[in-house]
Amino acid sequence: MKAVVLLSGGLDSYTAGAIASAEGYALSALTIWYGQRHAREVESARAVARALGVERHLELPVDLRPIGGSSLTSAEPVPLDRDLSAEGIPSTYVPARNTIFLALALGWAEVLGAVDLVIGVNALDYSGYPDCRPAFIAAFEALAAAATRAGVEGARFRVHAPLLTMTKAEIIRRGVSLGLDYGLTHSCYAPRPDGRPCGRCDSCVLRARGFADAGLPDPLLA
Amino acid sequence: MKAVVLLSGGLDSYTAGAIASAEGYALSALTIWYGQRHAREVESARAVARALGVERHLELPVDLRPIGGSSLTSAEPVPLDRDLSAEGIPSTYVPARNTIFLALALGWAEVLGAVDLVIGVNALDYSGYPDCRPAFIAAFEALAAAATRAGVEGARFRVHAPLLTMTKAEIIRRGVSLGLDYGLTHSCYAPRPDGRPCGRCDSCVLRARGFADAGLPDPLLA
Repeated sequence: MKAVVLLSGGLDSYTAGAIASAEGYALSALTIWYGQRHAREVESARAVARALGVERHLELPVDLRPIGGSSLTSAEPVPLDRDLSAEGIPSTYVPARNTIFLALALGWAEVLGAVDLVIGVNALDYSGYPDCRPAFIAAFEALAAAATRAGVEGARFRVHAPLLTMTKAEIIRRGVSLGLDYGLTHSCYAPRPDGRPCGRCDSCVLRARGFADAGLPDPLLA
Repeated sequence: MKAVVLLSGGLDSYTAGAIASAEGYALSALTIWYGQRHAREVESARAVARALGVERHLELPVDLRPIGGSSLTSAEPVPLDRDLSAEGIPSTYVPARNTIFLALALGWAEVLGAVDLVIGVNALDYSGYPDCRPAFIAAFEALAAAATRAGVEGARFRVHAPLLTMTKAEIIRRGVSLGLDYGLTHSCYAPRPDGRPCGRCDSCVLRARGFADAGLPDPLLA
């Protein structure tokens, strides 16, 4: 069984891909360079793709900076030391990002003859992004059936989001049990000039909290 | 009221934009260069955007050639002199194209504070593409509500497809009644080296038939 996995280079998509691989899917990995300030993660995606033993890895440039609207794709600074319990969606939200990414994955899946898409979204320890929720995943599956030749011909596209209801600590424990090397990954939104994580953006804080809750050291910081 | 219109440079999206404009929408036009062999249409999109008096025109490169799967984005020849009454979806179908394009329009709309998207799809005189049908449009509206910050905050995104159930002749008559200059547009999938239409691809044949049925000359061929 073939599946297309959206691979960012972060911890979550690596784990989601590994879970799909353990379930028997042969993976094709899609990485989008979208003008994110932490483009460093694309290098990590290459290492992660190799570690996952994917059949093919496509890096696609889709520059979203002209659209803007996010501190990840504009000059607006990424918020640091934010209160993660605060209501609302932070400025790191990229408008329609997961819709765009899944749409591209859908097109590629259709070409490859795959009906399974894998995405590492997570609705618990996340930053409040709307396109990381179960309602979004269900709506995309419904769209995929209507949008494609394969769907019209009867294919049932499925969006696998195996991390959807897991905490970050559960994700990390699961990945470690699968033998993953999280030292290959990159999570930070605002990396230092030398590429090291800032330790203060939402993504760094959620990652650190996840490793702490899992009772494990983060190999990236070793 | 603001709306984002997907403008290809073809006849349909020009007319859809003009209808939305006549309804009072202030248009922002989005044109995607996706590696189509008829990239000539992007030049037409510029002329059409000017003619429509759009507030802004964004040309976004999203190269779909690495994904492939279509005779519009690969070395596979575009079919000529095809039997348009034949069953099935032709090779000019681009996997998930309208899903990708609407996703990008959705992201931009969110940044602009618009909830109205306009697309020139047409389910009658078309080539059998799945992402040109009412079911696709409805599914995308449902997705948009779940996918975005604006949707979560209560915005109701609408996808306007004013040509959905019109024949090509009806579209042309409507456009002409709105004063549109179809000489600005480009429809051909396989233009000659000098940019003139081939006259034999689906798009040329449907256009010619539309003008004939409308009892009007095509200014592009004048």
